[in-house]
Amino acid sequence: MKIALVQASFSEGNFGSNTTVIINSIRKAALKGADLVVFPELALSGGYVGDIADYDDFRESNLDMLNNIASECRDIAVVVGCYIPTEQIMEKPFYNAACFIADGKVQRIVAKTVLNDNDINEESRHFEPNSTFEICTYNGETFAIVISDDISVPALSSEFSINPMDEISKQNPAFAICIGAVPFDYNQQEIRRMVISANAVRYEIPFVFVNHVGAHVNVVYDGGSMVSNAHGEIVYEMECFKSGMAVVDINEVKNGSLKEIETINTPKIERIYQAITMGLRDYFKRSGFSKAVLGLSGGIDSAVVATLSVDVLGKENVMGVLMPSEFSTDHSVKDAEELAKNLGIEYDIVPIKSAYDSFMKLFEPRWNGLPFDVTEENLQARIRAVTVMSYSNKFKAMLVNTSNKSEAAVGYGTMYGDLCGGISAIGDLYKTQVYELANYLNRDKVRIPINTLTKAPSAELRPGQKDADSLPDYDILDQLLYAHLEGKNNAEQLLAMGFEQSLVNKVLRLIRLNEYKRLQCPPIIRVSTCAFGHGRRFPAVW
Amino acid sequence: MKIALVQASFSEGNFGSNTTVIINSIRKAALKGADLVVFPELALSGGYVGDIADYDDFRESNLDMLNNIASECRDIAVVVGCYIPTEQIMEKPFYNAACFIADGKVQRIVAKTVLNDNDINEESRHFEPNSTFEICTYNGETFAIVISDDISVPALSSEFSINPMDEISKQNPAFAICIGAVPFDYNQQEIRRMVISANAVRYEIPFVFVNHVGAHVNVVYDGGSMVSNAHGEIVYEMECFKSGMAVVDINEVKNGSLKEIETINTPKIERIYQAITMGLRDYFKRSGFSKAVLGLSGGIDSAVVATLSVDVLGKENVMGVLMPSEFSTDHSVKDAEELAKNLGIEYDIVPIKSAYDSFMKLFEPRWNGLPFDVTEENLQARIRAVTVMSYSNKFKAMLVNTSNKSEAAVGYGTMYGDLCGGISAIGDLYKTQVYELANYLNRDKVRIPINTLTKAPSAELRPGQKDADSLPDYDILDQLLYAHLEGKNNAEQLLAMGFEQSLVNKVLRLIRLNEYKRLQCPPIIRVSTCAFGHGRRFPAVW
Repeated sequence: MKIALVQASFSEGNFGSNTTVIINSIRKAALKGADLVVFPELALSGGYVGDIADYDDFRESNLDMLNNIASECRDIAVVVGCYIPTEQIMEKPFYNAACFIADGKVQRIVAKTVLNDNDINEESRHFEPNSTFEICTYNGETFAIVISDDISVPALSSEFSINPMDEISKQNPAFAICIGAVPFDYNQQEIRRMVISANAVRYEIPFVFVNHVGAHVNVVYDGGSMVSNAHGEIVYEMECFKSGMAVVDINEVKNGSLKEIETINTPKIERIYQAITMGLRDYFKRSGFSKAVLGLSGGIDSAVVATLSVDVLGKENVMGVLMPSEFSTDHSVKDAEELAKNLGIEYDIVPIKSAYDSFMKLFEPRWNGLPFDVTEENLQARIRAVTVMSYSNKFKAMLVNTSNKSEAAVGYGTMYGDLCGGISAIGDLYKTQVYELANYLNRDKVRIPINTLTKAPSAELRPGQKDADSLPDYDILDQLLYAHLEGKNNAEQLLAMGFEQSLVNKVLRLIRLNEYKRLQCPPIIRVSTCAFGHGRRFPAVW
Repeated sequence: MKIALVQASFSEGNFGSNTTVIINSIRKAALKGADLVVFPELALSGGYVGDIADYDDFRESNLDMLNNIASECRDIAVVVGCYIPTEQIMEKPFYNAACFIADGKVQRIVAKTVLNDNDINEESRHFEPNSTFEICTYNGETFAIVISDDISVPALSSEFSINPMDEISKQNPAFAICIGAVPFDYNQQEIRRMVISANAVRYEIPFVFVNHVGAHVNVVYDGGSMVSNAHGEIVYEMECFKSGMAVVDINEVKNGSLKEIETINTPKIERIYQAITMGLRDYFKRSGFSKAVLGLSGGIDSAVVATLSVDVLGKENVMGVLMPSEFSTDHSVKDAEELAKNLGIEYDIVPIKSAYDSFMKLFEPRWNGLPFDVTEENLQARIRAVTVMSYSNKFKAMLVNTSNKSEAAVGYGTMYGDLCGGISAIGDLYKTQVYELANYLNRDKVRIPINTLTKAPSAELRPGQKDADSLPDYDILDQLLYAHLEGKNNAEQLLAMGFEQSLVNKVLRLIRLNEYKRLQCPPIIRVSTCAFGHGRRFPAVW
């Protein structure tokens, strides 16, 4: 039996375009001689769609489109992920289902058993878990169908309460199909292979895994669809971050004529680059923007985001605005100009002193000689935001946010100032990772100026200010933040890891005090297992 | 048996202060002769705390504090809601539990069966549902313990898959205790009574219900704790929006000496007023702010929010900033001044023309004669935001957002302009409800100027602009929005209800196109069953 793996990009809540992708893929797969075409989890709806599913037309379109697809399946079978309405009162409204379609109709609906409510997921909001298990049969071949998390925990632990594959394997399937909507993070490639491989070994059958590719606002899907033989050897893997179709003969997997391949581990920083550029590209496309604008400070963050934007949109579609204030050092403008010239982008120099002075004059009667404080620092950041947002409005260019994760964690940023933007490109990268990415971006030639890479980071909002005046060294800070955010270590555990008491207290306090700021931030392209935003849910004040 | 109902305010994730409230209440209840003290659902943690629960110290503090409480329970018993860790691998980490404590230790842990993942809730993120049912016994009395949603669906429908009370009632409890963390909405009072009453009738036993009071950022708890007799008659009800303790003798409920009371239905607009002022009060307190600042446009929205702020913080703690532009009409400043004088608040007039001109001068070389468009409209709104945020920073006064739900729905507002603020006071009120609230605020004397109430709404961002130029009449718009947002009616259903095709298309399109704006809005105090924010989850772009 020849199986076509369709690693494609689907659009959230857009049944029309998703159905077109699905039907075109079925026809193409037929031409390639496939017997069975496999699409990812929730392909039909374009992934989990949140409360779009609360409306009756979602339910109806979903079923209509499923019928359209079924009518394509005369001499070919399909496994496609979609929402299937439940029927019982007091159940959640849908199953997260895999539909097995053959002979022009839906032959079997297999629902997901292990629902995911961690991190960015909230499947229990709309889905009812499965509790019945049965294999599918097509052209005399029997196979199991499972959905992403159904196989992820069993692979990692030998103790569990429900394991769909344990149930289905009692019926002796010849192989298993796992459809996924498994988001990217920079360790996901290895984990994914390990999970598929461990399941294949456990059940002694080949596994076919098919995943989404493309970005849905903050969430990136990198694909990595693959086939493992019954020994857990990866015999086929699709290129990450690329749409495509692969046809694999399951008999060749079974009889060993399809041999284990050497899987390639892309360096982490390259994966991060691919994820962020895919995230930016798809967000621009889906929001209908083709141009970007951003403030260039001469610092590392804006330099990296400008370079990423050029790689995504082309240099002719990126505009830089340099907005020096009286506290900007000479090298800031020089470094920013050098960057703009290196990238070949258009840029304007808009000194903000006159606007700053005009505000200060407005405030004079009320301020009445009060000393310079955070107000005036924020004022500069906000005048810059007003300026770039005016460019954004006038030229229909999206402002790309340039904040990083270290700053966001400790609240080192101005609301309605540098925290503005349509999307945050590097908001899930710690400052030290931003430097790593900068070096990666400079791998072939210097695009980000050397001085930007080597000078001490500074917000330049007061004379002689340096990040290091109020923040610990980023090397230490980032380690602590990682241990706390990704690692979930609390104060006591951080102390045991060797971090200083005063530092731990200060940083944990800052993280807590700044939840309210992060609540109003743009969506952050997620590359880690703990991005700020809807994957990390804390009260605004506590 | 005398039961003390403790309707109190608890602080999210703050075990120390919550335990103090609990222990003090136990001691007070003992003095009042109570045998059993009942606290609300998740009282110990201060309600559902999101990902705070991912850290080990949460788990530890939780159990430590439970022990402290247990040591208070020598001659008195307690039912208190708290997180209880689960033990099985592949289960969620906690139960949403009610601990029955007597004789100095936890006698029984009853976990919630029906987890809520609708609207603002996401209980499946951390909680495992209960599946075992057993009654409790104390001083020879048997009783059932259930938790909020455990009894809400059965009361409304006769068909359901799991019903905890059906199971427990087989063991013949003499009465039932239901602890809740049931948020306010303006219809909740009637629903709550109906649910308790229907359960009492169904199981023919008295029901004791205890709820939180107080606000957690956007979510308001109004209390309304009550006791129903076995005939479903409410024999005791605690005042809404007030902390307090009531001691009810369950024998008097059973023997009929405690008679049915006449429940009072507070008018909806008064409840809304109480909820918003409680929301503002608690958010200010928890964020450590005692002062508010807001822009006064002369329009209805800012007038209502200023008045609410004065009621919450006192006139000496509210400051108004009037920021006329060249497009402001004469009456705007006049109406805003009249409001400030009526309220007795301090205010400044800060005309924004000079700041506007200084920005336009900065843009001149690049704009190069391009016509006035949305850029210049937004520029005015953003200059105002920069101005009030400067006041906010300089005087440590929180900016209160003044956007309403109708505007937010259709995207009639400027990001980083009028959409700024620490908290949104009226963001869950449609424009027509804002007028209703304004009239309520004027009930004793005119505080909001009559002209503000009667003139046509306008953003005044271009000459002669009126909301009605680009939006339908608010009477119609609000009905349509309500039917779509709260009522979940889709386009086809709205047409069937009699709304015009072109209006339906336009409004639904605007709602969809403006998800990205609402994503960066401040938290909105929730008074309806569908507030924008984390109770309504749509992709930023789709």
